[in-house]
Amino acid sequence: SVNPDLASERQTASFSVEKLTAWLDGGAEHTRLRRAVVEAIECDPVFSRENQYFQSQNERYEAAVQKAVHLQKKMQEMGWSENGPEFKYIYRAVSGDIAFLLHRIFMRSISVLGSDKQVAKWIPLASQYRVIGSYAQTELGHGTYLQGLETTAVFDIATQEFILNTPKISAMKWWPGDMGRSATHTVAFAQLYIHGKCYGVHPFIVQIRSLQDHSLCPGVTAGDIGPKMNYEHIDNGYLMLQNVRIPRENMLNKFCEVQPDGTYLRRGSQKINYFTMTTVRISLISDEVVTPLMKACTIAIRYSVVRRQSKLKPGEQEAKILDYQTQQEKLLPQLAAAYAFHFVNGYLQELFDRSYRDIQRKNFDTLPELHALSSGFKAMVTQYCTSGVEICLRACGGHGYSSLSGLPSLYTKILASCIYEGENTILLLQTARFLIKSFMAASTGQAVPPSVTYLASVKPGKCPAKNESDFLRPDIYTEAYQHTAVRLISSTAAKLQDLIQSGVKKHNAWNQCTVQLVQAAKAHCHYITVKNFTETVEKLETKAGIQKIMKHLCDLFALHGIFSNAGFFLYDGYISGAQMDMVTASYLDLLAIIRKDAVPLVDAFDFTDKSLNSALGSYDGQVYQRLYEWAQKSPTNKQISPAYEKYLKPLLHNTLSKL
Amino acid sequence: SVNPDLASERQTASFSVEKLTAWLDGGAEHTRLRRAVVEAIECDPVFSRENQYFQSQNERYEAAVQKAVHLQKKMQEMGWSENGPEFKYIYRAVSGDIAFLLHRIFMRSISVLGSDKQVAKWIPLASQYRVIGSYAQTELGHGTYLQGLETTAVFDIATQEFILNTPKISAMKWWPGDMGRSATHTVAFAQLYIHGKCYGVHPFIVQIRSLQDHSLCPGVTAGDIGPKMNYEHIDNGYLMLQNVRIPRENMLNKFCEVQPDGTYLRRGSQKINYFTMTTVRISLISDEVVTPLMKACTIAIRYSVVRRQSKLKPGEQEAKILDYQTQQEKLLPQLAAAYAFHFVNGYLQELFDRSYRDIQRKNFDTLPELHALSSGFKAMVTQYCTSGVEICLRACGGHGYSSLSGLPSLYTKILASCIYEGENTILLLQTARFLIKSFMAASTGQAVPPSVTYLASVKPGKCPAKNESDFLRPDIYTEAYQHTAVRLISSTAAKLQDLIQSGVKKHNAWNQCTVQLVQAAKAHCHYITVKNFTETVEKLETKAGIQKIMKHLCDLFALHGIFSNAGFFLYDGYISGAQMDMVTASYLDLLAIIRKDAVPLVDAFDFTDKSLNSALGSYDGQVYQRLYEWAQKSPTNKQISPAYEKYLKPLLHNTLSKL
Repeated sequence: SVNPDLASERQTASFSVEKLTAWLDGGAEHTRLRRAVVEAIECDPVFSRENQYFQSQNERYEAAVQKAVHLQKKMQEMGWSENGPEFKYIYRAVSGDIAFLLHRIFMRSISVLGSDKQVAKWIPLASQYRVIGSYAQTELGHGTYLQGLETTAVFDIATQEFILNTPKISAMKWWPGDMGRSATHTVAFAQLYIHGKCYGVHPFIVQIRSLQDHSLCPGVTAGDIGPKMNYEHIDNGYLMLQNVRIPRENMLNKFCEVQPDGTYLRRGSQKINYFTMTTVRISLISDEVVTPLMKACTIAIRYSVVRRQSKLKPGEQEAKILDYQTQQEKLLPQLAAAYAFHFVNGYLQELFDRSYRDIQRKNFDTLPELHALSSGFKAMVTQYCTSGVEICLRACGGHGYSSLSGLPSLYTKILASCIYEGENTILLLQTARFLIKSFMAASTGQAVPPSVTYLASVKPGKCPAKNESDFLRPDIYTEAYQHTAVRLISSTAAKLQDLIQSGVKKHNAWNQCTVQLVQAAKAHCHYITVKNFTETVEKLETKAGIQKIMKHLCDLFALHGIFSNAGFFLYDGYISGAQMDMVTASYLDLLAIIRKDAVPLVDAFDFTDKSLNSALGSYDGQVYQRLYEWAQKSPTNKQISPAYEKYLKPLLHNTLSKL
Repeated sequence: SVNPDLASERQTASFSVEKLTAWLDGGAEHTRLRRAVVEAIECDPVFSRENQYFQSQNERYEAAVQKAVHLQKKMQEMGWSENGPEFKYIYRAVSGDIAFLLHRIFMRSISVLGSDKQVAKWIPLASQYRVIGSYAQTELGHGTYLQGLETTAVFDIATQEFILNTPKISAMKWWPGDMGRSATHTVAFAQLYIHGKCYGVHPFIVQIRSLQDHSLCPGVTAGDIGPKMNYEHIDNGYLMLQNVRIPRENMLNKFCEVQPDGTYLRRGSQKINYFTMTTVRISLISDEVVTPLMKACTIAIRYSVVRRQSKLKPGEQEAKILDYQTQQEKLLPQLAAAYAFHFVNGYLQELFDRSYRDIQRKNFDTLPELHALSSGFKAMVTQYCTSGVEICLRACGGHGYSSLSGLPSLYTKILASCIYEGENTILLLQTARFLIKSFMAASTGQAVPPSVTYLASVKPGKCPAKNESDFLRPDIYTEAYQHTAVRLISSTAAKLQDLIQSGVKKHNAWNQCTVQLVQAAKAHCHYITVKNFTETVEKLETKAGIQKIMKHLCDLFALHGIFSNAGFFLYDGYISGAQMDMVTASYLDLLAIIRKDAVPLVDAFDFTDKSLNSALGSYDGQVYQRLYEWAQKSPTNKQISPAYEKYLKPLLHNTLSKL
């Protein structure tokens, strides 16, 4: 039975939850398909996550491998294919809790960087797990800066082999998933040397474990890098190579080749490498970042209407904690952000699809914009959502801190997204470089990509808002964001120029502006997010019930941003102190309005209880009952600790006579 | 041998690290004593934390119990006593990684709330671990709001006993440490009923496990609440009581008593309860909050001069990551905050000691101020330091995410400090209530406590700074903080009054102001922290080398606060846009200055390698070597996973013929 405090929240929804879900999915037929996939996965006991919070790293790994291998059978059984429409729902259905994700990157890199012959040889083997691959790029001492990699691959003409070496400890491959315990092969990146000359970093297929008995190949040292903040199910590994010889054919050679006599050939465009990274950054936003924030909001908001604490009004029952303004101010902006980033993800996907069509027609013009946006958004969205999940966790008090709430693992996992696939600060600086360049171009009248044309239309002036309700006008707040982004970009560009003109070397000048460049890049992404949200709401005109609540969320997202970054808007007086009071008042009013629909708004995300895996967040709101039931299953309750016999009994046994 | 990149940082220190350490410790003799205690603990293998990152919750618990029991012997052996000067260093030396912390609260509550007879009976038993106690206040459904507790204690005149019951699942005691698996007794809080009348919450000593065989007593259900984000070594527990009878003497009765005929007597002041909570909040700031931030800074800053990544200048060697402005901007403000809060802790201790002397003379006048400050600072410092540790973790990239860096466990542990001993938002609202009251009193000319006299001296006007260097004047920035705190407090007081005058009910009006009240309380604490830092630096005049660098840190802490909360200062034009540019310029310049002394500044915290327990943060900077050595010890490398035989072998064995 549903907890009555939670049930009552659902009776007053201002819109149809089912319709909102269908709209978010892109149509009711998608919702049906998604539910069918989730159902098929969840009713299969192999995919159960029931005991996940109690398992050791070894147990998690074993279960993840079992799931990966089983999934292949399941897909055949269900008639799902990797290119089918179901595929994107599978990862969501297993909550990412599966092995061999790097094996997929191994396959993708062979597909993209390998010759037709290499693809023909390796892809069929890999797609049936007849080899298990990893992708060994990062080294102990080198991450983002690829040119710094130290692993070497020396071409030996006599034997027609490459000899791979890890010349020192910092050159050890470190972090690659599926490498610590599973992989038989890896794509390893190494500096190519021919006749003593270095040709830079290239990818090589290296066998690391025997297919016979899984023992390490001669010259290979590999293992697991040990415990991490999360990802216990993945065997992130290390790899050291000592004179490991591989045949000449094992260098991935679509774009460059070493010929038998040692001649080095480069062919085709390298820009496509760029594009692969971009793909990964965009695809992770939805699965690894927005979905966890949606889950955290679902858990925290449902819990906040079941949990009662203190009295709002003397003499009354204790209040639902979501009725406190401070609790609304913690959770509802995160809910609005989850929606905002879901829509931004759609925007980026569209941009990506357009770009991809261009590229297939050999037109690479959109790549710089796509790269800048995907970098900046990867950084901005991961950072925002990570902090959002943390806020949700803390807003649930002590019970949020229990692993059984599901929130700790959501947090420790999403945190990694700020680091992998490009460290966020470095990514934001790449966006900033694009913005500065575009700003310079725009100010000299040159054409710039669509997302930055606004840089050309710098209008001085003040925010025209006259009262609170003006700040519920999308044109008013979007323009405020635009103004702020332009100001941050232009003033940093000016500082950069001033420094250079005053004689500071270019690289030093850049370094001295990086704190502000990061601010500018974030402001740009924030602006695009707000603008895209308002456009999404506008397009909704026919779906009145949904449009109204989406408009509220859009307003909340926008005003929360102004309220929390007030300095940027007040700095040059674009928004005055009096106007900031209007922002604050509108913002706080919106909290009370959206609070009424908070539960239906998270219900619309349509997560099953199994997928949330949270004692606090289940659909029925039986929070306390479930915490108690789950706690009893903990291994800490399954044994009498040896601590009693060893340490406590000798002390306590002396007590009896004394009491 | 020390990594040369780290060694070179130490050669250019602008001050004597040893002198700074001694000053931070309050004198060289304290440093000597601290080091002796740490050394004695660390050379004892029982206290080793070497395998901590690899242990399960069961193993951690067992080790923690062993340590607690062993510590008692150790203390006798070393001649240390609980009241001796060594005691405060012991907790630091074991890094909190020890059982029976709630047992100490059990003892403290008996000492404070128990009669002389009760103290005489229980304290000697408890201090020898002849009983093991816990402190059962929080319930599954009730935390901070004590009046809401649902456990009942009904007095039975016939048998002269209290009958304790858990009437429903939400009334189950939940979270108490040492209760899940260890405690034989607990102080349980329950609603007292006599003749059907409720007298409110009272504390009772309840036996929950047999001293004979540790089995649960009749009517008692208890166990471990399962996995948490950290604190695996503590057996946080649940407890359900069904008609559990305890003798009348087991109600702690220093301040109230139930007489044999059921007459209820209340005696003495209850205010002292208040004081106990205050003690705990103040004492946790140093051990649980500032120390972890200092450790995180030590790890991240040492790592950031060993780690090299990308080129700052083309053609040069890859740069130390601490040479990037963005990395400085992440880490150095956290370092400054660690110092700032170390000093605030001293300020609160002094205030506490003065207050304690007053209380012993039956003068309770300082309690409201002490309560307000300890609440607000507990909230502000835990929040600031938690976010600081997270920044340090993220600033170390992938390696920071490895448990072996020590940062994940620092983060997951410090996060709990935002929740326990009073949820932060609720605490800040208590501070705010005091501030509003004081502001009202001050504006009608009444006397107010020393920390809030500034509320009376509201001066309108603008910040007088004319250039960048003016913002390095403590009077300039302290006044800016003061102005902002006064403005936030006074404007929220005005909003509150307006709402009430417009007919909004008082409790609703309060709720509608809480977001701003929280801001006001934080601004007050921030102001006191800055002011106290400047005063600490001023008092340093004779120690020139140290004073100079402390002045830089103080400036950095203050300007970072203005830079990151610019909106509060710009809002009413107290600081203009042009002045904010000066703040920014001064702030960024300071980063480059302090960067030079960053390593000596963390060395001065004087953590041993064992205490940091970090592969990234050791004194010698042999980061990569240590990561590799430690990873090899992981249990994931100690077994061949059954996953190979079960799932991989059948697939891979088909491959051989194909390759």
